[in-house]
Amino acid sequence: MKQLTIIKIGGNIIDHSEKLHQFLLDFHALPGDKILVHGGGKIASELGKSLGIEPKMVDGRRITDIETLRVVTMVYAGLINKNMVAQLQAKSCNAIGLSGADGNVISAVKRPVSTVDYGFVGDLNENSVNTKTLQSLLESGLVPVLCAITHDGQTQLLNTNADTIASAVAVAMSGIYDTRLVYCFEKKGVLRDVDDDDSVVRQISSTSFEALKADGVVSGGMIPKLFNAFEAIRKGVRAVYIGQADDLPLIDTNGFGTELTA
Amino acid sequence: MKQLTIIKIGGNIIDHSEKLHQFLLDFHALPGDKILVHGGGKIASELGKSLGIEPKMVDGRRITDIETLRVVTMVYAGLINKNMVAQLQAKSCNAIGLSGADGNVISAVKRPVSTVDYGFVGDLNENSVNTKTLQSLLESGLVPVLCAITHDGQTQLLNTNADTIASAVAVAMSGIYDTRLVYCFEKKGVLRDVDDDDSVVRQISSTSFEALKADGVVSGGMIPKLFNAFEAIRKGVRAVYIGQADDLPLIDTNGFGTELTA
Repeated sequence: MKQLTIIKIGGNIIDHSEKLHQFLLDFHALPGDKILVHGGGKIASELGKSLGIEPKMVDGRRITDIETLRVVTMVYAGLINKNMVAQLQAKSCNAIGLSGADGNVISAVKRPVSTVDYGFVGDLNENSVNTKTLQSLLESGLVPVLCAITHDGQTQLLNTNADTIASAVAVAMSGIYDTRLVYCFEKKGVLRDVDDDDSVVRQISSTSFEALKADGVVSGGMIPKLFNAFEAIRKGVRAVYIGQADDLPLIDTNGFGTELTA
Repeated sequence: MKQLTIIKIGGNIIDHSEKLHQFLLDFHALPGDKILVHGGGKIASELGKSLGIEPKMVDGRRITDIETLRVVTMVYAGLINKNMVAQLQAKSCNAIGLSGADGNVISAVKRPVSTVDYGFVGDLNENSVNTKTLQSLLESGLVPVLCAITHDGQTQLLNTNADTIASAVAVAMSGIYDTRLVYCFEKKGVLRDVDDDDSVVRQISSTSFEALKADGVVSGGMIPKLFNAFEAIRKGVRAVYIGQADDLPLIDTNGFGTELTA
């Protein structure tokens, strides 16, 4: 099986042009096939504000009304995606920017209205990822750059969490590639001591995860993050990495963040 | 040689959702391989206005400053392109939306500053179109939908005339496909009497073009339009059609606009 690395980046890289430049260099340098998934960053909120669109929140969750959907479509699929692709092309990385609608690579289902109506938000399921088209693009030497916009197959674009897209793509592609999934975030990895960047826990297995939870080393928002990562591993992904983009060149020498394995 | 049809649409379709819906149905129904090229329409100017960006014009030509480039990147490559792709997908047309940066399909050169500095505008040349990647996408069963944004290969996105993109793609692809180029515009075709939609000149050859100019049937803005079309034909495109999107289903029975041939 060929190796495939799926990397997700968010605002802490996208919003800083020098960090982004370095990240894209390091991304391009990684061996094997690659897919990049990116979220939004500050630009969407700033554009929304300039247009007088107030962010709508319910229980701390962002609501995607039709105006917000227009903004995120413009910013994620247009401004951020195309600038990132142009930067990768300049680094001789043959990137191709895609929303989920393009080539129907990611289809989603509009989140059902329960107590909260999240608006135009898309949820993924086991049939969401079009592995055939992604594989065909990879085999043509292209590097897919996926933004956090999907579609429902019935004309509707949908705002979809980039972490979820990265995970769904990794799980689906793990049937045909030796797949690893990398989340770049603001910390060096899972830290034994949150105030000490040198305290990265280098490896966590599904067994040691339970112990780390019991010890309180893993707590708060880190629990669902790792839970989802282990779900991806259970479904076929070889390893999930969580760490800081700066350390990406060290991923094959165990110097990148925390590696989660079965 | 396989048949390839390249169709360019502009604001007169993009800005009207019902017309766009019908056009996309007719586009999908066309036999053979297809590429769609779209311009902008009113949405970019409206967004610019909402953001307080004044349109900058010199000698009636729009200037693309950095703020305008951001707006057109968001609107053309994001909002319009992705919505169009999602609509085509809903019609079972496996569309893939691309800027020129994606897969490096269209590279351009920033227009040199002469008496006018057009800003971030890209000009095309005979090496601009990446026929290999477009062919590979077509052979994967994908239908490229190109927006009017290109790149210079050195990170810079550029605003590029959609008519020019359509023509350059048609010329370049004519080496490997039996290629025809279709411009949808507001009129039924080249009209003998501008006030009579039934007076469409059905066929013009490069020889009859000279006679029609001499007679004054072709005049004004139509002259450069047809001149460019005949240039494309001289460079290998089998035929160029100019007409109204409504008539697209009639293109193979000589009922669509004016057909220009060698």
